[in-house]
Amino acid sequence: MPIRVVGFDGDDTLWHSETRFHLTQAEFRDLLQRHAPDADVDARLADKEMQNLSIYGYGVKSFTLSMLETAIELTGGRIPAGDLNTILGWGKKMLTQPTELLDGVEETLRAIAAAHDVYLITKGDLFNQESKLASSGLGDLFLGVEIVSEKNGDTYRGIFKRRGIDPSEFVMVGNSLRSDIVPVVALGGRAVHIPYQVTWAHEEVAEDLLPKQGWRRIERIAELPGVLKDL
Amino acid sequence: MPIRVVGFDGDDTLWHSETRFHLTQAEFRDLLQRHAPDADVDARLADKEMQNLSIYGYGVKSFTLSMLETAIELTGGRIPAGDLNTILGWGKKMLTQPTELLDGVEETLRAIAAAHDVYLITKGDLFNQESKLASSGLGDLFLGVEIVSEKNGDTYRGIFKRRGIDPSEFVMVGNSLRSDIVPVVALGGRAVHIPYQVTWAHEEVAEDLLPKQGWRRIERIAELPGVLKDL
Repeated sequence: MPIRVVGFDGDDTLWHSETRFHLTQAEFRDLLQRHAPDADVDARLADKEMQNLSIYGYGVKSFTLSMLETAIELTGGRIPAGDLNTILGWGKKMLTQPTELLDGVEETLRAIAAAHDVYLITKGDLFNQESKLASSGLGDLFLGVEIVSEKNGDTYRGIFKRRGIDPSEFVMVGNSLRSDIVPVVALGGRAVHIPYQVTWAHEEVAEDLLPKQGWRRIERIAELPGVLKDL
Repeated sequence: MPIRVVGFDGDDTLWHSETRFHLTQAEFRDLLQRHAPDADVDARLADKEMQNLSIYGYGVKSFTLSMLETAIELTGGRIPAGDLNTILGWGKKMLTQPTELLDGVEETLRAIAAAHDVYLITKGDLFNQESKLASSGLGDLFLGVEIVSEKNGDTYRGIFKRRGIDPSEFVMVGNSLRSDIVPVVALGGRAVHIPYQVTWAHEEVAEDLLPKQGWRRIERIAELPGVLKDL
C-alpha cells in the first residue's frame, strides 16, 4: 500500500524541547545543591515527576510545579521564596522561548506535504503545543493537528477513525520509540524513528519489546523522503 | 433547519468548576492576609492571572502557578516555603477531586443524545479536561470530544469543518456568553445559555454586545429538550 498520510511528532522531532528541559534541570540542580549539597537532585525530581504524572500530565507547567515541590521537600521547607520565584521564572522562560526547528525540518516537511496528507500528532500541554506550532511557521503545512494527552494504541485508533485514515497507508515519524513507533506498528501502520540527541528516560523502550518490522531508523529528517519511497 | 448536532460546554455546564476555584481562592485570601493584612489579594491574583494568560493558558495548573507568584510578590518574598507547599496542595486537590455533575445533567444528556449527535466542546487544560470527562461517566454519550485552548469563531469554524457540521443544524449549550453563545451565533449557529451560579469575570460580556436573536436563556439543563424543539 503506498503511503498517503504522514504523521509527525512535534517535540524533538520538528523542534527542540528536551534540551531545554535538561538546561533548566541543570540550573535547578545548581540552585538546590546550594541548600542541600548531598542531595541527588535529579533522582528526587524524576521521582516527583512520575508521582505527579497522573495528576498533572506532561509539559512545562507540570515540570515547573514538580520542581517547586521537589525544592520545598528537599530543603525541608527552608528554601527562600525568592529562589522559588526564580524557578517560576524558568518555567515562564521555557514557555516563551521561540520555537527552534531542528536542521532540515522546513525543507523536508514542504517536500513531504507536497505529495502527502501531513498531520502533526503531538503530546503534551495543549496551550503550549499550539503556541509552539504558531511560532514555528509550519502551521500551514499540516492538514490537521492532533494534540493529545498520551500517545498509545487508543489514541492512534481514534485519530485514524476521526480522520478516515487506514493504518496501512499511514506512517508516523518521531523520536520516541514508546509514543511514535511501537503503538503505530502494532496497529498495522508504519513508522520512522529519528532519535534525538537526548531522550527522556520515560520514553525509552527495551530493545526486545520493539517490533521486528514495519519501521526504520534514520539519523536526520532530511533522509525521510528517500525512506518513504521504499518503506 | 432542524437541529442535528448539539455541542455541550463542560465546566459549569455539565460539571461544577468555578465554585472550586472560588473556594480555593477564599483559602488563598485567608492565607495571604496573615502575611499582608492590608493587601487586596483578589485583585492582585486577578491581575496576575490576566498577565499570565498568554503564557500559561487556562486551567488549574495555570491558576496554581499564578497563586504562587502572587503570594511571593505580595509578601516581598517573605512567605515561608511551607505556605507555598500548601498552595501546591490546593492545586493537586482541585485536580484530583471527583467530577461533580450539575443537577439533571445525566438524564438530559441521555435524552438529547438519543436523537442528536452530541459533542463535548470544552476549553482548558487537555489533561485535566480528559480526566474530568473520564470520571464523569458521560464519555459514551459523546460522538466526539473537542478540547480547545480558546473558544472563538476560528475554533468553532475548525470544528464544523473537521466534523462536517453545517452551522444551521448546530446548537451550542453552555454557561459562558463569551465562549459558548456569541461566537456560535455569529457563525449562523444557535445557542442556549444556562447561567452558572458564579461567573469568572473574564467570561462576562456587555449586554449590548449580545446577539439579538439565535439564542435562548434557560435556568437549568432539564429545560433543554423542550427548548430544542422550538429554538
